[in-house]
Amino acid sequence: MPGQFSANRERLQRDIDALARFGKSGPTAITRLAFTDEDNAAHRYAEELMRKEGLRTRYDAFGNLIGTRAGSEEGAKPVMTGSHIDGPPDGGIYDGVIGVIAGIEACRALTETGMTTRRPIEVVAVRCEHLDRFGVSCLGSRALGGKLKQDDLDRLKDEDGISLRSALKQCGFQPTELASASLRDRAHAWIELHVEQGRVLEDQGKIIGVVTAIAGPTRYKVHVGGKADHSGATPMSIRRDALMGAAEMILDLERLTQETADCVGTVGVIRAFPGAVHTIPGAVEFYVDIRGVRINDKAHLVDTFCQAMEERARGRDLSLKVETFVDEPPVPCTDWVVAELNAICGDLGANFMVMPSGAGHDTQHVAAVADVGMLFIPSAGGIAHTPEEYTSIEDVAYGTEVLAEALARLAD
Amino acid sequence: MPGQFSANRERLQRDIDALARFGKSGPTAITRLAFTDEDNAAHRYAEELMRKEGLRTRYDAFGNLIGTRAGSEEGAKPVMTGSHIDGPPDGGIYDGVIGVIAGIEACRALTETGMTTRRPIEVVAVRCEHLDRFGVSCLGSRALGGKLKQDDLDRLKDEDGISLRSALKQCGFQPTELASASLRDRAHAWIELHVEQGRVLEDQGKIIGVVTAIAGPTRYKVHVGGKADHSGATPMSIRRDALMGAAEMILDLERLTQETADCVGTVGVIRAFPGAVHTIPGAVEFYVDIRGVRINDKAHLVDTFCQAMEERARGRDLSLKVETFVDEPPVPCTDWVVAELNAICGDLGANFMVMPSGAGHDTQHVAAVADVGMLFIPSAGGIAHTPEEYTSIEDVAYGTEVLAEALARLAD
Repeated sequence: MPGQFSANRERLQRDIDALARFGKSGPTAITRLAFTDEDNAAHRYAEELMRKEGLRTRYDAFGNLIGTRAGSEEGAKPVMTGSHIDGPPDGGIYDGVIGVIAGIEACRALTETGMTTRRPIEVVAVRCEHLDRFGVSCLGSRALGGKLKQDDLDRLKDEDGISLRSALKQCGFQPTELASASLRDRAHAWIELHVEQGRVLEDQGKIIGVVTAIAGPTRYKVHVGGKADHSGATPMSIRRDALMGAAEMILDLERLTQETADCVGTVGVIRAFPGAVHTIPGAVEFYVDIRGVRINDKAHLVDTFCQAMEERARGRDLSLKVETFVDEPPVPCTDWVVAELNAICGDLGANFMVMPSGAGHDTQHVAAVADVGMLFIPSAGGIAHTPEEYTSIEDVAYGTEVLAEALARLAD
Repeated sequence: MPGQFSANRERLQRDIDALARFGKSGPTAITRLAFTDEDNAAHRYAEELMRKEGLRTRYDAFGNLIGTRAGSEEGAKPVMTGSHIDGPPDGGIYDGVIGVIAGIEACRALTETGMTTRRPIEVVAVRCEHLDRFGVSCLGSRALGGKLKQDDLDRLKDEDGISLRSALKQCGFQPTELASASLRDRAHAWIELHVEQGRVLEDQGKIIGVVTAIAGPTRYKVHVGGKADHSGATPMSIRRDALMGAAEMILDLERLTQETADCVGTVGVIRAFPGAVHTIPGAVEFYVDIRGVRINDKAHLVDTFCQAMEERARGRDLSLKVETFVDEPPVPCTDWVVAELNAICGDLGANFMVMPSGAGHDTQHVAAVADVGMLFIPSAGGIAHTPEEYTSIEDVAYGTEVLAEALARLAD
């Protein structure tokens, strides 16, 4: 790609492979839960990489690792880039990790061209993006966003009963100083490079996605109640079959979502009760996940779908209970950052597209206190969170070069 | 009801209550698996009731209990009536039992009016109708129908590894003489009175159902394969959602079944894989139960539904695998017996209707070697196989009086 910065594929591959050793649980699998020995060792290794590159490193009160490449102007706010390096059980070796390695490699590329920037550039390894240890995702970025409170440190516990506060203390961090981790008024901009975890880029033949917004999920459990009857002895005309009603609702969800741009709707879990081959389902439970990047469109979809479910239930004399257990607003990326990333991609002649992020990311929490943007690179087959997760080293390098250009311009 | 025979409600209630003591597992629940101590004790109690009524009793080689009320003509083939007295775990106290008690009470009613019949009348307590011990239903009636083979006695085992042959031996029966249990050329007619286990009679306000045919089930497991993707990161347009395809298929089943008279179609079990709220189902498995009383109509429905599933799978680029694990033909009741039962109900001015049986019954196996008919009486709310199973004593008596009339006429 024509650009002033060149990412070194061998170095990138070496760093990816090196980080994959911490918590290795298969040839291309890692199990690296937050604040475990493996996770701490991975952070120390990243710290080492940063130091070798001449970055000044520190851990904030929550254990987020921050490496600073000095700028020329005293007191200028840094341009920050980062992602996470923890992972889910038997996850892949790209998710999160790529964003941290690319940040370090981008600094190297700047240095190799002799580039000095006015603003400092900071590379962050955010802690505990995955929910697998404490049941809540993005804890490190919630700390950066000033959203995590002292209460949360005691309330959140892992399955051994260890509180988040204890885990922080055990690792030598400063839970009582949590508030000091906030990036409020401290960053000029934040950019996260991440693998897409979907297959839109692959389908469109693009290598870079400039993210416009991060979708907010609304999730509910739906209970449809009918009448369990003998499957042989009950004619069709007198049935109150909960599964037939649920099937109509599930297809309504698809139809209504297709009519709403940039929204997605999924039923991933369904159960029929009592669950016997020769018994008409007297009840069905299913879980709905609706996401959208425009708050009004998503709200409209949620409303319309609930009305559709009520109508289907009425039409078959079924009962309906809807329990919302997640309802988060979408988070738009900052307009000027998105515009800048678009302009950079255009100037570089990059093979890019603009797109929403359906998945959640650390950036959505940093957005509470800083101007943010995100760059995606392809996930082969859209696979995420499994050992089959894969992004080619060419795509990683391509993304790193775009990131380097963005950091250089924003820090100028 | 105007008729020459009168059933005694107190006696019927006493017999129902008495039999409910064997294997009692709740106020109105019994757990009485075939060939257990409880089951044997219940059969001995029924034998006692028969003997008190002057019936000559015997057990056949399979342990089916047969009580004979003598006829006046030497060598005339008997009219037989019977049902089963075993039950599923925590089943109710009416299923099966009612048919045996009504048979005994019908004999009492005949005797009380001084009625002697030309043919003998035989009351049978059939063994092991429920599949809960040996995994196959209607074993005693398969023996009566000459359908059970020596091989089966060794092949069928309970969950403790006890073979059907061992169970028979332990109870003192003669597994090697199994073939002698067949009723081929031995019965003039067979009539079974049974609770409906559905709610057609209740819905129609009728007390007697004259059964025209016993539906044969066709059951298959359907596997729909798509692609499991991230529910947030995968736009609707590029999904291959196995659950959406399955929902269409399930609704097709309902529609096609409604278009086919006297057939029913049910999906009682459904599972989505991997089964996570935030993952699009990459596969769905569901079980289909189709029943019909006319072999061609059912076969047509099965074919049309399979075609519909194939079309739905093609339309969404999903894979489809259909495994048939049960495919039994419907069994019509014998025309002349059905006509006779209809005529009797008409003559008595009974509150009756003709109807198919969606559920399976011992009679469908006896039909292989004898002319058969069935009478249904209502199941409150259509409930079967649970402690809530209930039929009023008035309805039991009503059914018993119709049965008595039928036995008297057929044995004349």
